[in-house]
Amino acid sequence: MMLAAVAGVGHVPEIPPPWLIDKSDFCVAKLKGPVGPAGYSCKNPAKVTVHDFVFSGLGMAGNTSNIISAAVTPAFDAQFPGVNGLGISIARLDLAPGGVIPMHTHPAASEILLVVRGTITAGFISSANTVYVKTLKSGDVMVFPQGLLHFQINAGGIKAIAFPSFSSANPGLQILDFALFANNLPTELVVKSTFLDAAQVKKLKGVLGGTG
Amino acid sequence: MMLAAVAGVGHVPEIPPPWLIDKSDFCVAKLKGPVGPAGYSCKNPAKVTVHDFVFSGLGMAGNTSNIISAAVTPAFDAQFPGVNGLGISIARLDLAPGGVIPMHTHPAASEILLVVRGTITAGFISSANTVYVKTLKSGDVMVFPQGLLHFQINAGGIKAIAFPSFSSANPGLQILDFALFANNLPTELVVKSTFLDAAQVKKLKGVLGGTG
Amino acid sequence: MMLAAVAGVGHVPEIPPPWLIDKSDFCVAKLKGPVGPAGYSCKNPAKVTVHDFVFSGLGMAGNTSNIISAAVTPAFDAQFPGVNGLGISIARLDLAPGGVIPMHTHPAASEILLVVRGTITAGFISSANTVYVKTLKSGDVMVFPQGLLHFQINAGGIKAIAFPSFSSANPGLQILDFALFANNLPTELVVKSTFLDAAQVKKLKGVLGGTG
Amino acid sequence: MMLAAVAGVGHVPEIPPPWLIDKSDFCVAKLKGPVGPAGYSCKNPAKVTVHDFVFSGLGMAGNTSNIISAAVTPAFDAQFPGVNGLGISIARLDLAPGGVIPMHTHPAASEILLVVRGTITAGFISSANTVYVKTLKSGDVMVFPQGLLHFQINAGGIKAIAFPSFSSANPGLQILDFALFANNLPTELVVKSTFLDAAQVKKLKGVLGGTG
Amino acid sequence: MMLAAVAGVGHVPEIPPPWLIDKSDFCVAKLKGPVGPAGYSCKNPAKVTVHDFVFSGLGMAGNTSNIISAAVTPAFDAQFPGVNGLGISIARLDLAPGGVIPMHTHPAASEILLVVRGTITAGFISSANTVYVKTLKSGDVMVFPQGLLHFQINAGGIKAIAFPSFSSANPGLQILDFALFANNLPTELVVKSTFLDAAQVKKLKGVLGGTG
Amino acid sequence: MMLAAVAGVGHVPEIPPPWLIDKSDFCVAKLKGPVGPAGYSCKNPAKVTVHDFVFSGLGMAGNTSNIISAAVTPAFDAQFPGVNGLGISIARLDLAPGGVIPMHTHPAASEILLVVRGTITAGFISSANTVYVKTLKSGDVMVFPQGLLHFQINAGGIKAIAFPSFSSANPGLQILDFALFANNLPTELVVKSTFLDAAQVKKLKGVLGGTG
Repeated sequence: MMLAAVAGVGHVPEIPPPWLIDKSDFCVAKLKGPVGPAGYSCKNPAKVTVHDFVFSGLGMAGNTSNIISAAVTPAFDAQFPGVNGLGISIARLDLAPGGVIPMHTHPAASEILLVVRGTITAGFISSANTVYVKTLKSGDVMVFPQGLLHFQINAGGIKAIAFPSFSSANPGLQILDFALFANNLPTELVVKSTFLDAAQVKKLKGVLGGTG
Repeated sequence: MMLAAVAGVGHVPEIPPPWLIDKSDFCVAKLKGPVGPAGYSCKNPAKVTVHDFVFSGLGMAGNTSNIISAAVTPAFDAQFPGVNGLGISIARLDLAPGGVIPMHTHPAASEILLVVRGTITAGFISSANTVYVKTLKSGDVMVFPQGLLHFQINAGGIKAIAFPSFSSANPGLQILDFALFANNLPTELVVKSTFLDAAQVKKLKGVLGGTG
Repeated sequence: MMLAAVAGVGHVPEIPPPWLIDKSDFCVAKLKGPVGPAGYSCKNPAKVTVHDFVFSGLGMAGNTSNIISAAVTPAFDAQFPGVNGLGISIARLDLAPGGVIPMHTHPAASEILLVVRGTITAGFISSANTVYVKTLKSGDVMVFPQGLLHFQINAGGIKAIAFPSFSSANPGLQILDFALFANNLPTELVVKSTFLDAAQVKKLKGVLGGTG
Repeated sequence: MMLAAVAGVGHVPEIPPPWLIDKSDFCVAKLKGPVGPAGYSCKNPAKVTVHDFVFSGLGMAGNTSNIISAAVTPAFDAQFPGVNGLGISIARLDLAPGGVIPMHTHPAASEILLVVRGTITAGFISSANTVYVKTLKSGDVMVFPQGLLHFQINAGGIKAIAFPSFSSANPGLQILDFALFANNLPTELVVKSTFLDAAQVKKLKGVLGGTG
Repeated sequence: MMLAAVAGVGHVPEIPPPWLIDKSDFCVAKLKGPVGPAGYSCKNPAKVTVHDFVFSGLGMAGNTSNIISAAVTPAFDAQFPGVNGLGISIARLDLAPGGVIPMHTHPAASEILLVVRGTITAGFISSANTVYVKTLKSGDVMVFPQGLLHFQINAGGIKAIAFPSFSSANPGLQILDFALFANNLPTELVVKSTFLDAAQVKKLKGVLGGTG
Repeated sequence: MMLAAVAGVGHVPEIPPPWLIDKSDFCVAKLKGPVGPAGYSCKNPAKVTVHDFVFSGLGMAGNTSNIISAAVTPAFDAQFPGVNGLGISIARLDLAPGGVIPMHTHPAASEILLVVRGTITAGFISSANTVYVKTLKSGDVMVFPQGLLHFQINAGGIKAIAFPSFSSANPGLQILDFALFANNLPTELVVKSTFLDAAQVKKLKGVLGGTG
């Protein structure tokens, strides 16, 4: 039966039907609410607007006036509530000339890096200890499997920009140097568990503000 | 016990130990092998190289000399074997002035759209029938929850470029007009299931090459 | 050692042991509590009864006196709290003669349709644009893969009844006509993103109460 | 830009574009191919037809002339290849007067039981040892959380029919009596692990064909 | 650019950068908070200490002076909040001579049993009714696939100790005898659904405190 | 209807019914078959025996006469085919006095460490750079959330033994020192991505056999 015919009889249906109301296809993070293993609690769908699904913070360059001449600007669930529960997030990398995103892992996500400016030497090391390194130019993408150590280094004379996407709304980020040298893990334990020289450990703890 | 001391005794350990060999953190797609619900079979890790993890096909503009003045260049598992099984993929959108990525869904993935050039009006409709639309500028990102109808339209006078990332290595893509008008679904069934006028259906079937 | 022998010594064990208490194999939805990406919060197990696991609302015919001569009665988590978190739900379809469940998707679930009365022509379209259509008789089941456009049309002269099951406790339901014509998505954007004629869009917006 | 205008210029686009070909939203089981933890290998999509997505075997009554006066007719992945990888399946239960689906579990799935004829007393027991039992009439649904012992008994004087849906394409089915008494598990081990009397075990082994 | 050089210029970077704060790689259970399908709510990360990740309750023998001459000491999410959301948990089994962990299932987890003292005869039965039994000695491990009936019996003259690990933070535990005989499931329903003799059922209900 | 009555009429049912045959609750790894993202292909169930589900390789001490005075003996899917697809595996750690399992991650799994002999100082560092360290005694368990750097050091004068369980059948293992110093990752890239002194890098590359 065609719509036109039905409509012709003057019937005014309730459209959409009531059982369609209150259905929700998303779970915008309510950052102040309870958090669970699957993510943040959901904001009341009635209060969700398009602004929850758009994030403009990646449009500006991060501040690279720092020790690594680089910046990471995340759009994870904590910054971009619309991705909560959707298994995806994104970030922006700015690498000044000489800049580097030091060796790090994302404990809970794989990553695809998209280079949009400059050239970047990126690499990861597998559990089998094989090294996969390549210098990427603008337009190239590279994938880093979940949980593996990887790094990105500006390989050109100009500022480089890249956007990593992640297979989780909260991929985590563990930077090796921070984990080893920027906290109170005792030097003795760092030495024992890494075989680095104590002097090396103390030197980097000094630079990065670690204690112990 | 420190490494230096141990090394001093002249012991030459087998490093890495044999149980580390053959471990694999990834499953690069063997496109000719059996496929299963979780993705393609894995290429022999011994034959995997960094080239499996890098894709350069997004560096070139897609051909927008077509009916939609737009192009989609995917880097899904079939094009970019390194993402197989990793729950992430990416693509490139080129929209000439007036170009549009027509109403579509990704049946198996959420999407984050990153605009890198021009302006794009993007939107999606929820199950509760709420419309979320916004005009995005370069640097903006917008998330489209899994399976919902959405679209992208060039909103400026210049070519626009964007990169959608997906929460699946094989997100799928169902373009509404193709589904309704570019195959052999009989006009009668299209009319009955969409309430479109038969003339409208026939007109679009004509343009898009549909039969029936 | 056999139970009978042990029992014979008069020992009165604590059965079940205390560590068995408070264990819960389910998470009956507490509809007023916080919601997260994985579903509703759990009702206190001590207050759960068998009534939480039984739903009788599918025993009555839905009201088909409407524009589609059909009705969908859902038993999703919001109506049937016992399915929360269990990855399954069900619904009832009533199709009067001439009735149709219009083209729609379930953004987050696959579906198996069980026909129990009458005959129904059902079909779906894949991402590769292939059409899969069949007229089903009572006792037939048909599966619709996740997120794809599909429809059901009464193909006989009598009322048809079917029960779709879903691979999610909250499968979602996006009806194409409602998404395009029953909300405030501007006609211009509908036209641009679907290539439908403006007159067609306005006509259906008029019937379905859409604005813009 | 509207389609009509573009079409007017005589351009004949390639629709759908080649990158849409070979995409697959499903993985119809190739029953003879390799099987993996996620299910069967996928049949070549080019050879898939609508018949792979439709199953008519549930339209006929199962043979209830047996020890339990009941029959289970499954439409799991092995019988209904279209559900492979989709996380859902279905079956049919026929219970003659006095019939019973004995105490059993589905090791890998939750179940929703839909009664379509007669009355059935169904129940499950939780890990906390609470019993949830109810007599269901036609049109009622009941959910059984994953992995828990449950049963269905014809509670009326007429044949009863029900359709259980499952949250897995291969839910498994472990019938308690078969597990204990219809194989070669030695009587001594059954007695020790269940505290049943040896005579009871031997009696049921005799009936069900068990040895040891 | 090397760290030493940068550090030399006297720049004092903010390390770690603010966007690293508040990230959380875990979700220690807040036992009093809302619970959802994915587990307990997360304790405030600022209040989490190493004590949340360590559990010492498995260091002591469980009390085996009971009807089964055995004890199960769980370290599931309710006892060991650090495992919440991590998909793993552990327990301790103590089996005095003659002790037995009776036939049971874990509705939501697979198990690996590690024997560390004594000998244990363990077995499981598959859905296909095949019996897999073996007598394990100290150092052996055996895996029990999810949801299947299994048991462990002390097979030596000395106390046996084993540690089962589970693929869930809340694996559940359904002991067959308790499910059938230690609650208010009416004898008539037990008899009908198990084919056990009523006298046998009543006898075990008497021992285990069941009613009905 | 009771079994005894039915049995009395001399009916010989087909038990188990044919639809129970060929069902499989597990997927024992066929190590030579195709591998996919979800694991190895399944061995023919008809050829599976209890030996596939039992592994005795953890009963013997690993060889600790090496640079770390420690040994890891894995029972992952490659060594213990029965765990394939079940989301769980186990290993054995032997730490001679002074032994250490150096800083490492499991890219795809959380871990629970069970200490059964001696004392072990174990710790992990979170993404937020917090250190969680504790000295564990026999009987203690400690959980290490997925993907985070962690280590174990023998903290006593005697050999220590521990059994780590993992939330994956193939957790992976990336040892920091091997990743940085035991392969061909160029010294320059190690220095740039870790801020270690080149001399330190070269020294450890020398010990561990790295090149570049």
